[in-house]
Amino acid sequence: MPVITVDWWRGNDRAARAELVAELTESASRIAGCPKEAVTVLVRDVAHDHWGMGGTLADELVAPPPARPRPSGT
Amino acid sequence: MPVITVDWWRGNDRAARAELVAELTESASRIAGCPKEAVTVLVRDVAHDHWGMGGTLADELVAPPPARPRPSGT
Amino acid sequence: MPVITVDWWRGNDRAARAELVAELTESASRIAGCPKEAVTVLVRDVAHDHWGMGGTLADELVAPPPARPRPSGT
Amino acid sequence: MPVITVDWWRGNDRAARAELVAELTESASRIAGCPKEAVTVLVRDVAHDHWGMGGTLADELVAPPPARPRPSGT
Amino acid sequence: MPVITVDWWRGNDRAARAELVAELTESASRIAGCPKEAVTVLVRDVAHDHWGMGGTLADELVAPPPARPRPSGT
Amino acid sequence: MPVITVDWWRGNDRAARAELVAELTESASRIAGCPKEAVTVLVRDVAHDHWGMGGTLADELVAPPPARPRPSGT
Repeated sequence: MPVITVDWWRGNDRAARAELVAELTESASRIAGCPKEAVTVLVRDVAHDHWGMGGTLADELVAPPPARPRPSGT
Repeated sequence: MPVITVDWWRGNDRAARAELVAELTESASRIAGCPKEAVTVLVRDVAHDHWGMGGTLADELVAPPPARPRPSGT
Repeated sequence: MPVITVDWWRGNDRAARAELVAELTESASRIAGCPKEAVTVLVRDVAHDHWGMGGTLADELVAPPPARPRPSGT
Repeated sequence: MPVITVDWWRGNDRAARAELVAELTESASRIAGCPKEAVTVLVRDVAHDHWGMGGTLADELVAPPPARPRPSGT
Repeated sequence: MPVITVDWWRGNDRAARAELVAELTESASRIAGCPKEAVTVLVRDVAHDHWGMGGTLADELVAPPPARPRPSGT
Repeated sequence: MPVITVDWWRGNDRAARAELVAELTESASRIAGCPKEAVTVLVRDVAHDHWGMGGTLADELVAPPPARPRPSGT
């Protein structure tokens, strides 16, 4: 039943997403008292130059991760 | 007035999106009693390896659609 | 798998929500080619004075529905 | 065309929402080059004890506004 | 930096939300490699009769929690 | 504290996003009475053929911007 969305900066690889999904699902299902199969997690990679922090695009504040083949993310 | 978002797995083509938008708009406008022009539908294609189901990324559970030129999805 | 959210004006009753959920689920499951059980629909009632249209709060543009016991909406 | 959502702490009154909607709409329509009528803004009041900051619910970090008749927010 | 939203059924109390926020924040900050202070978690309680599962409103499928004073949820 | 998301049509460049983030942050922080550093803005570029208006995909209604190297958007 819980639907969880995570918006975070692009640059995290599949292993990081897998770890995140496993941990958030475990926590949510235990706390909500529902089976893990009921938990959906959507991970959205957001480019630094699409994320505003304090009025500035994050690519001005933080060096984006080195360019690499675009992960099959949205 | 209704704003509808649809997060679903990447792999559906434009024809599927057009059909989805037409049907969801028709239902929402009729039920809400508002003109179709008032209805917005945002379709988000989510890669299988960004979608967690039961604590696992969906690309481990379901074979993603065959690779093809990336649709002009978000 | 599809997760659908609907933001619409407060004032629609349970019967309207049930009709909306049934129709959106039927359309999405058929078009996405997944079982209905895989479809989640979240319906969010938004008060007119929390909805901006053209720069104005909607309660200035449209008479909100007559006051009644607050539905068990979010 | 732009759809803007604002999640902020509960406690802002209608005048604040009206001012927010007017300003965000003006900015978005000018920058996107679309008429104001095309801009939708959804304002979500979130109770402090439903907002996590640094791992803690915000009502532990910030005194919520004085109790008053619940605004007709979602 | 990560912004996490959790939509789950109404009925979980403040202690459950505090536990959820603490755990999701710890996981996200460790995996993303960012300080906990950078993590925002928004918890949305959704009434069973606003949550569609398999085309049916959840209050037909699951007995909602016993009525109690409405938590200060959104 | 405010978290703002903007879904708008793909085609706006980085300068437009930077201007949007600066203005929305300034408005939200002033109206909410919080520091700019507390405001997060997520900008989502949505392709015209993923945006439904009045039941039709927007690429049928509006000529999408000329093809150019895909911006580093989500």
